[in-house]
Amino acid sequence: MRRSLPALLLICLPTTALAGRHGAPPPPFVPDVRANAAVLLGRSLQSDEPWQELTSLADEFGPRLSGSPALDRAIAWAADRMREDGLTVTLEPVDVPVWVRGDEEGRILSPVADNMPLLGLGWTVATPPEGIDADVLVVASFDELAARAPEAQGRIVVFDAPFTTYGDTVKFRWAGPEAAAKVGAVAVLVRSVSPESLSTPHTGSTHYADGVPKIPAAAITLEDATRLHRWQESGKTPRLHLKLSGVDKGMAPSFNVVGELRGRERPNEIVVVGGHLDSWDVGQGAQDDGAGCVASMAVLDQLAALPFRPRRTVRVVLFTNEEDGGAGGKAYAAAHASERIVYAIEDDTGAGAPLGFQVETQAADAADAPDRTTQVVSALAPWVDLLAPIGADKVGAGHSGADIGPLLAHGTIGFGLEHDMSGYWRVHHTEADTLDKIDPLMVRRNAAALTVFTWLLAETPELLDGTRPLQVQP
Amino acid sequence: MRRSLPALLLICLPTTALAGRHGAPPPPFVPDVRANAAVLLGRSLQSDEPWQELTSLADEFGPRLSGSPALDRAIAWAADRMREDGLTVTLEPVDVPVWVRGDEEGRILSPVADNMPLLGLGWTVATPPEGIDADVLVVASFDELAARAPEAQGRIVVFDAPFTTYGDTVKFRWAGPEAAAKVGAVAVLVRSVSPESLSTPHTGSTHYADGVPKIPAAAITLEDATRLHRWQESGKTPRLHLKLSGVDKGMAPSFNVVGELRGRERPNEIVVVGGHLDSWDVGQGAQDDGAGCVASMAVLDQLAALPFRPRRTVRVVLFTNEEDGGAGGKAYAAAHASERIVYAIEDDTGAGAPLGFQVETQAADAADAPDRTTQVVSALAPWVDLLAPIGADKVGAGHSGADIGPLLAHGTIGFGLEHDMSGYWRVHHTEADTLDKIDPLMVRRNAAALTVFTWLLAETPELLDGTRPLQVQP
Repeated sequence: MRRSLPALLLICLPTTALAGRHGAPPPPFVPDVRANAAVLLGRSLQSDEPWQELTSLADEFGPRLSGSPALDRAIAWAADRMREDGLTVTLEPVDVPVWVRGDEEGRILSPVADNMPLLGLGWTVATPPEGIDADVLVVASFDELAARAPEAQGRIVVFDAPFTTYGDTVKFRWAGPEAAAKVGAVAVLVRSVSPESLSTPHTGSTHYADGVPKIPAAAITLEDATRLHRWQESGKTPRLHLKLSGVDKGMAPSFNVVGELRGRERPNEIVVVGGHLDSWDVGQGAQDDGAGCVASMAVLDQLAALPFRPRRTVRVVLFTNEEDGGAGGKAYAAAHASERIVYAIEDDTGAGAPLGFQVETQAADAADAPDRTTQVVSALAPWVDLLAPIGADKVGAGHSGADIGPLLAHGTIGFGLEHDMSGYWRVHHTEADTLDKIDPLMVRRNAAALTVFTWLLAETPELLDGTRPLQVQP
Repeated sequence: MRRSLPALLLICLPTTALAGRHGAPPPPFVPDVRANAAVLLGRSLQSDEPWQELTSLADEFGPRLSGSPALDRAIAWAADRMREDGLTVTLEPVDVPVWVRGDEEGRILSPVADNMPLLGLGWTVATPPEGIDADVLVVASFDELAARAPEAQGRIVVFDAPFTTYGDTVKFRWAGPEAAAKVGAVAVLVRSVSPESLSTPHTGSTHYADGVPKIPAAAITLEDATRLHRWQESGKTPRLHLKLSGVDKGMAPSFNVVGELRGRERPNEIVVVGGHLDSWDVGQGAQDDGAGCVASMAVLDQLAALPFRPRRTVRVVLFTNEEDGGAGGKAYAAAHASERIVYAIEDDTGAGAPLGFQVETQAADAADAPDRTTQVVSALAPWVDLLAPIGADKVGAGHSGADIGPLLAHGTIGFGLEHDMSGYWRVHHTEADTLDKIDPLMVRRNAAALTVFTWLLAETPELLDGTRPLQVQP
């Protein structure tokens, strides 16, 4: 992105700048935080570039699960795009675990023969090549499974728990295989973690516990989970055919993509902003997390176009392997443990309207440290009016992000861009996480929120957690 | 359904009824239209029986396409249920055309290899057993296809027209194969006729024209139609693999299920109320049109429990073969052409909240007949307040129903129960037309609206189109 710069140059100068024309020495270089935030807001809202990049990312590669050629190509593409924007780009190696889905098949054998759409859960073991035929036990909770444990032996256990919150419901996907295997089930099916369905299965990682048999695990649709449940309640015992072919392919090389703008004044204080470039192996990963990646790339594209560098170093990091391992986030924190990453911002909850930023910290000094999160929230209060025009001025304690989580133990203050998630869970980890679900204008607003916020963090002189007292008056 | 009747008996008697106790002759038998409408409303709203029947219909048989064993079983079940409610039940034979789907497969070969969910359109011919591999031409309209006709030769034509209204969009499903074949296409794909998608293809009938090659036709998802379109717009030519196996199985016997309550005073004036028992061959046909069938059955169940018969004969008709031929509706009109079917009501637009009734007529006497529809709407005005408490009091001109349409040419006044359709098209003709989409309380409200309205039509002395002047004061 190339722009003409005169208008921007003006707002880098203090109001006494004209003094220089009369022979006095030029004033110290002090970019105006608010004036530049306004320019960044306006330019971000007018830029269609993140949407164009999201279109490329969604349409040119295919789904981007760790270890896939599609992710490798997307990594090369992202690095190229950042270089074009004038950043210093590094591909930081990460070993990632690789799981490949293979052929899958689900059928209801009785009481009414029908097809049964499903998606194997990430890291499921395969069934025997001919599949498994077994009767079903449907339960709505772990407690019900425990109460009916004798009935689970030799059966396919189905967890039919209605969606409440993601956290409350995803536990069946994560811990269901272990619980079912412990009571002798031969496979486990979970109702897809979503409040609604149009015959749409949702994948996502599961795990196995040491010393417990690994049984095949898949997600079925809301339609079929409730149907199986109704049959059972009416006295019938449904029987299913299930075939899964997932294969653990061991480790493979991958990369976090890192683009950097070195800070003009405090280059060793680093602000990270990013999302994850990998996706599940279905759909296009447009919402999860293509949208977060292009918004993060837009931040540095906009900052790079300023006629000066922000006070601190700003890095965009596009993490690898968030979905089925988290190796990218862990590797980044480990590789940069000796640096002072003061802030990290993650954008990984979709492309709904931006609402604000959630703050997450770990107390640096447990003895008598004030509540760092509260302090950071308070310190941001004088600035958030800059985000009010796009409705993104809500700041409070909350989750930051899976990829930046490992940085928090090193003292980094974490921020999560909060979105309207009303349309999020319905497409999460499905074939329907595609570009058509995304509003191009929301992509602009998200890029604007992320850009203005990153600018604030990178430019305000003092650190938000009171490491030094604030001196600048907003 | 068995009830105790004393409370109902009271409101069959005029207020002078007690006179009989003192030796005067008993008054003439005049059921109170409004008082009985109120009782029917209350009893319908309290009855869970239609929901229980819908559960059975959805869960016990599988999808019910014409000619399927599932429809045959559902027909027998419906007849049994009506007999249990005390109706005279007839199975009226109808020869129906039979099409069977077979194996189907869609894949994107380039520019990015991926799976491509699809559903063959009803009555599509099969591809060769090995399938078809061909390049794609995407168009948004018939005009664009005409303009780009030379490019269609040897290709798979994809119609990517965004949903506006069903009528405006379904034309590509219906006439797309003919239009594409005329310009040399080897197959045709249409964007599913729906305003939204979670990777969900929608089937539905198509047709072929005489003298035009019959090419395979399927519906793809909104996600893939827009993706193919974007690829084309960026200069790429997508290539697809397509396999369809639909087979025309000729004709088979089926039945309209007819239950009757003979009228106490004008048995030869007949009121028909119904929906269609067949469905597409995916999902459960819960919304389309299981919901309309159980509401229609509820009407006669409630009327049969009154301590008297309505003035006119009332028939519930569950039609066969609405979805892929319309043979049931045509056969019913032909078989009963000599009868005086004064009114017919159809409930075939889902299970959303009832809003009112649409009136459709054909002028009986073209010379100087008043506008019959307007006259009927006016004649209903004094009565619709009975439906206002459940929000179903909207009456105006509109479509009545596909199955009862053939009756209109014989002078029948047609009515369509109008529903809130905001959730309708998203599941229409898909695997997601399942019981979980239906609100049990809306089933009650729809049954109540249909019951009260049928009661009005069956009981008010004069006919609504002014065949005789109205004498009863509402």
